[in-house]
Amino acid sequence: MKEVVAGVDIGGTNTIIGLVDARGEIHAEGRLSTPEYAFADDFVKALDQKLKEMISRHDDLKLTGIGIGAPNANFNKGTIELAPNLRWKGIIPLVKLTERCTGLKTRITNDANAAALGEMIFGEAKGIKHFIILTLGTGLGSGIVVDGEVVYGHTGFAGELGHMTVAEGGRVCGCGRRGCLETYASATGLVRTVLALLSDSREESVMRDLKSSEITSRRVAEAAAAGDPVAMEAMDRTAHMIALGIANAVTFSSPEVIYLFGGLALAGDALFIPVRKYADELVQPVFRGTFSIMPSGLPEAQAAILGASALIWKEAK
Amino acid sequence: MKEVVAGVDIGGTNTIIGLVDARGEIHAEGRLSTPEYAFADDFVKALDQKLKEMISRHDDLKLTGIGIGAPNANFNKGTIELAPNLRWKGIIPLVKLTERCTGLKTRITNDANAAALGEMIFGEAKGIKHFIILTLGTGLGSGIVVDGEVVYGHTGFAGELGHMTVAEGGRVCGCGRRGCLETYASATGLVRTVLALLSDSREESVMRDLKSSEITSRRVAEAAAAGDPVAMEAMDRTAHMIALGIANAVTFSSPEVIYLFGGLALAGDALFIPVRKYADELVQPVFRGTFSIMPSGLPEAQAAILGASALIWKEAK
Repeated sequence: MKEVVAGVDIGGTNTIIGLVDARGEIHAEGRLSTPEYAFADDFVKALDQKLKEMISRHDDLKLTGIGIGAPNANFNKGTIELAPNLRWKGIIPLVKLTERCTGLKTRITNDANAAALGEMIFGEAKGIKHFIILTLGTGLGSGIVVDGEVVYGHTGFAGELGHMTVAEGGRVCGCGRRGCLETYASATGLVRTVLALLSDSREESVMRDLKSSEITSRRVAEAAAAGDPVAMEAMDRTAHMIALGIANAVTFSSPEVIYLFGGLALAGDALFIPVRKYADELVQPVFRGTFSIMPSGLPEAQAAILGASALIWKEAK
Repeated sequence: MKEVVAGVDIGGTNTIIGLVDARGEIHAEGRLSTPEYAFADDFVKALDQKLKEMISRHDDLKLTGIGIGAPNANFNKGTIELAPNLRWKGIIPLVKLTERCTGLKTRITNDANAAALGEMIFGEAKGIKHFIILTLGTGLGSGIVVDGEVVYGHTGFAGELGHMTVAEGGRVCGCGRRGCLETYASATGLVRTVLALLSDSREESVMRDLKSSEITSRRVAEAAAAGDPVAMEAMDRTAHMIALGIANAVTFSSPEVIYLFGGLALAGDALFIPVRKYADELVQPVFRGTFSIMPSGLPEAQAAILGASALIWKEAK
């Protein structure tokens, strides 16, 4: 019998489930429609059912635990708290509900912390004691590892570098404040920088022929690659802000590696080269040359499941 | 026989030595003139001599280790590296030199990390697993504790919140960059803010009758207490920037308490009340109400020795 852990990635639309072995191989995948379940109790019963169904088709596998990645998840308390994109309101004790229903050890954390664990157990960060992963998507998520452990802090919500203030009085953020790092250093931030440049400059740009709502980070990256000056400038400014966030994070925990993950990181050299250059300029001199900035080693499509399962595999090791 | 540890605080002018027991009582104090010793080897011999002399006068005490606080000290490597205020140039393996000369277990770290350890072992932070101490002096030093351990990072130099960039293109910093937190949030930063206000505003102020070089943080605090509008505004802006640094640090490690230490913190309510108000406004909403901002529990005059000794006492516990 091969032991596997269920990696569960709860999103606003879909919940993706994978049965992951100790080496990161995914033996089966399943899916639930998250908003179909008005109450977390019903969701947990459906999850239990789905897991039984998945495992029943593999009599060589033994399910030993459940790791969950979810928005607004609190590792310390085992809860999902006030998640705006889920139907389950208030504070949901999801770990307790799941353990009671399935009888299996369960852990939960947010997506970025799960990504950090995935990187540590299955990705590029094996043996790296001090690292940070930044997930560059709609927002900027972060998982911080100090001495081989994810930093959860007193509240269980630590590692919110996207909400570090980098420009007082700057752009409005979804959190209700202004000038948070993620309003600049994320896929959404990149698009906002394009809009700012379109208003500020008189440069020609293919972006001028798109509705604002049609401008996506992928289109900006493609236009930059094709030499569009506004797109190129926006990429450069975004790289600068990612580097500023990295420089500030380095003064805090002095990591050996910062991994970049998510849509924006797929731009490759077009992003990594300027981010590395600016980080070297912006960081406190004592840390110059002490860290590297690398792409995540996790495949984009499986990272969430692998990371979630790593919550359990980490404790087994 | 009572066991004691030598707490050694190396400064540019004086080195202060205390024999500290496990409860934080100082049984004897001594002093060396740091710049008298052109080479670290000679300093270590003099330190060994001084310790022997101190202990010989107390036949009830047994010396079991040496903890050293020093500028630019690296805990991981046991070194002092490129300290601008010391005569010993380059990278000094002070722990190795001291252990070889004295035969006693020796540890070294910088002043702010020593303050964190002092707070943990002898001060207000006993049993607090996640906290940060900010030392508000000429600069802003910081010691960060996560899960009961000081964060040293990959390099051994972690915890430099004073060099977090909070205002791109802002004030020139001693580190060679611009806009570092400590250029605003420190005793020196307070004085610089007074100078900025004197140039920017037309307010009457007793500060206008002083040479720039005569304006000190203490004088500003006194003038603010007496109702001087420029001094009051400068105190308020300084509190705002300390709070901004705290808010950013909270997104990182979500501490339970932030302790403020050093000259500026002695201003008491005049500082703590606005810092708490601004930190509550500036922090990411999820962390509101989850942390407190408190004065350090260490007596100013003995904190450096207590903190240095705590390096050894921490490992003994």
